[in-house]
Amino acid sequence: MIMEKLASNRIFGGEQCRYKHKSQTLSCEMHFSVYLPPQVQGGKQPVLYWLSGLTGTDENFVIKAGAQRVAAELGLIIVTADTSPRGDEVPDDPDHDYDFGLGAGFYVNATEEPWKEHYQMYDYITKELPALINANFPADETRQSIFGHSMGGHGALTIALKNPDKYRSVSAFAPIVSPIKCPWGAKAFNQYLGEDMAPWKEYDSVYLLSQAKKHIPMLIDQGTEDEFLENQLKPHLLLEVADEVDYPLQYNDREGYDHSYFFIASFVENHLRFHHKVLEEES
Amino acid sequence: MIMEKLASNRIFGGEQCRYKHKSQTLSCEMHFSVYLPPQVQGGKQPVLYWLSGLTGTDENFVIKAGAQRVAAELGLIIVTADTSPRGDEVPDDPDHDYDFGLGAGFYVNATEEPWKEHYQMYDYITKELPALINANFPADETRQSIFGHSMGGHGALTIALKNPDKYRSVSAFAPIVSPIKCPWGAKAFNQYLGEDMAPWKEYDSVYLLSQAKKHIPMLIDQGTEDEFLENQLKPHLLLEVADEVDYPLQYNDREGYDHSYFFIASFVENHLRFHHKVLEEES
Repeated sequence: MIMEKLASNRIFGGEQCRYKHKSQTLSCEMHFSVYLPPQVQGGKQPVLYWLSGLTGTDENFVIKAGAQRVAAELGLIIVTADTSPRGDEVPDDPDHDYDFGLGAGFYVNATEEPWKEHYQMYDYITKELPALINANFPADETRQSIFGHSMGGHGALTIALKNPDKYRSVSAFAPIVSPIKCPWGAKAFNQYLGEDMAPWKEYDSVYLLSQAKKHIPMLIDQGTEDEFLENQLKPHLLLEVADEVDYPLQYNDREGYDHSYFFIASFVENHLRFHHKVLEEES
Repeated sequence: MIMEKLASNRIFGGEQCRYKHKSQTLSCEMHFSVYLPPQVQGGKQPVLYWLSGLTGTDENFVIKAGAQRVAAELGLIIVTADTSPRGDEVPDDPDHDYDFGLGAGFYVNATEEPWKEHYQMYDYITKELPALINANFPADETRQSIFGHSMGGHGALTIALKNPDKYRSVSAFAPIVSPIKCPWGAKAFNQYLGEDMAPWKEYDSVYLLSQAKKHIPMLIDQGTEDEFLENQLKPHLLLEVADEVDYPLQYNDREGYDHSYFFIASFVENHLRFHHKVLEEES
């Protein structure tokens, strides 16, 4: 696998770097970013994967979340991924809406034309990207966790629930918890997965959590003034099922916070410490 | 004075907000941002003014520096200003270079045509903006300090050195310390202030520091891998004069850091604690 380093900046004693590579899974060129904490000088460190929300790229979290400070303290590698396949050859929403197509891959494997050639974000995030990271960085592949925001929170939750042996913990800021029951998800799944709704539930956190055989620690933060809370995010749907099946979900309503990175920045330290605690435990 | 609130986001228990107003000094509409820490609920708090570098606006620091966390802990209001007058009526560099005209006001009062009508950033930062802040926010006008980055570091240093009774402390990341001896400064001063170099020294930190009657605490951080270090920033010029006149300058070389906000984010906590300590002392 070939990759090219595009940027490197020292921050909090570690290195924030950015790469591009040709993705076999997505049939296009992709960017990702990696924060290497100072502790990598001493050997392999655990890895946190971050998934951004609609319109995001690998860079939003790097620039806006302020996570490197705590990652440098705890010795966590943070890998941030893009939100969809990219490039002129990748089909986009005909109306170029922000909530479908480029910037809105929803972390699924599309089964429908014209999307399925490129929109295989589930396989990219769970297989190709970790393989690339593990082969090229001092990442301890036995210790990885995943987190994300909004659509990326949906991605993190579904990916962790489907792969509880690959990820030790999962967290989300303002996640879409049930794409099959919100307009964003319905629009995307209808096109990526087809009109038959039966396969949709395989990418629905509420359904997946109800079926989970192995329970890994889960943390969710949700701002009470989030503009998408009622219509799109609907965290109560997940809370109800978690309660029914006694899932270890820590959920925090954050009074007065909205959907922005100002909210994420305020609580990202809690998320990193949550994951670090789990990742430091003996497996 | 009329101003309009454009945005408000909760972050670290405080409020990050953005405003626009009609500037009398600059004869145009300007934007600025204010972080109000939670402590403003209990009364007036000290104020830190931030000045950004070339191409910056009032928003770079807000989004990228991660300062709100420490400001919320210490109870500091942070006001971030734009870097030049703005608007279609404001003349720009004919070549639209990044280092002159819009986004590059250099915090001086221009004396030459066609710049002098709008480019009065020194008066805007030292008079109009503080008056607006003090009249509309819970700011303790007896306790204010100033800091900035690159061109904004030059702005902070010159403004503090010229107004040691208005600002209690000053700090800078990678400042231009002697605009009269670097290409960026020479280009800008030649046009804003005219070909006669005599008036230039009134905006030159090295000269101003050599003449300073009142010494206020000063902190400078400089990355050793800064791409502008040798040709534009030249901190040794300031260090030499500070040594000669025994100025209380704390200077830190930061090994491996560059000119970016990744550098600023890494050390902004030190700067806020530096200012806070001074601002908490009895005057």
